[in-house]
Amino acid sequence: MINILRLSHRAFRDARMSSHVCLTARAFGANKVYYTGQKDEKLENSLNKVVNDWGGNFEVEYIEKWSQVIKEHKNKGFEILHLTMYGINPESIVKDIKNKDLLIIVGGEKVESEIYQLADYNVSIGNQPHSEVAALAILIHIITEGKELTLEFLKAKKQIIPDNKRKLLNRK
Amino acid sequence: MINILRLSHRAFRDARMSSHVCLTARAFGANKVYYTGQKDEKLENSLNKVVNDWGGNFEVEYIEKWSQVIKEHKNKGFEILHLTMYGINPESIVKDIKNKDLLIIVGGEKVESEIYQLADYNVSIGNQPHSEVAALAILIHIITEGKELTLEFLKAKKQIIPDNKRKLLNRK
Repeated sequence: MINILRLSHRAFRDARMSSHVCLTARAFGANKVYYTGQKDEKLENSLNKVVNDWGGNFEVEYIEKWSQVIKEHKNKGFEILHLTMYGINPESIVKDIKNKDLLIIVGGEKVESEIYQLADYNVSIGNQPHSEVAALAILIHIITEGKELTLEFLKAKKQIIPDNKRKLLNRK
Repeated sequence: MINILRLSHRAFRDARMSSHVCLTARAFGANKVYYTGQKDEKLENSLNKVVNDWGGNFEVEYIEKWSQVIKEHKNKGFEILHLTMYGINPESIVKDIKNKDLLIIVGGEKVESEIYQLADYNVSIGNQPHSEVAALAILIHIITEGKELTLEFLKAKKQIIPDNKRKLLNRK
């Protein structure tokens, strides 16, 4: 099981970035995104609509305090991974976290130093400035060995038939 | 060589998404991003600043017509890949594009149907709605076999020393 904790969402400025974090989490097989910062019903509604149309089990939930989410996951035996450009190459820990439940923390503009200490692993996709969306995608891709490429979503009303030239969409 | 063509940039609405597309392209070893839509000097300046600080060779260039960029790349023998949620699994074409120069097209809000026809391959990372940033990252990761995890950037003024607990930054 993979859950995500998205920190410090700002409803206006981060609307699309947080939406892409959540959509990527879902499409790559994560179960749930918790987010802190500003509660954003537009974000939640748009995600719920995607789940309704495209299927699968995925939830997004606003929480006030990240400390509570981390604590609960630690108590349940989850490994805590924090994505930061300062971290280590996830290839070096892939064996250690194999088959474990994971909470992946995706930072906002400023990340409190306590997060670095609470995380079991601070990991980075390269050590260059780029994107939390790209980093999250690659991290889950590495952990799940590319599962997102062939993942199936139950109870989907919309389903794409992959094609090299045409847009083929099944509606149920 | 990998170049990117980002379509239909809107300077206000897409500022952060296009910035993340460009930063991801750079961090994953692409050489250049061409973009159409609205010319955006803020975007270009921020990218140039990243290159100045973090090193490597990477360019971003505004162009009016995507048709010209595609034509020029075709003439130079580049394979044209278009990222779309309707496309095929890139694992199925990885052998065919091995060691070839690539132009990867990253769509905007609406993509003209001609793009699907001009592309040699329409590829998708899963067939779920998610993020062009995540899709671009995974596509390059698959093609380059995870090169971004250990890529080095020449002439960098800033360099991170990967660490599991601390933020270690070298300034030159």
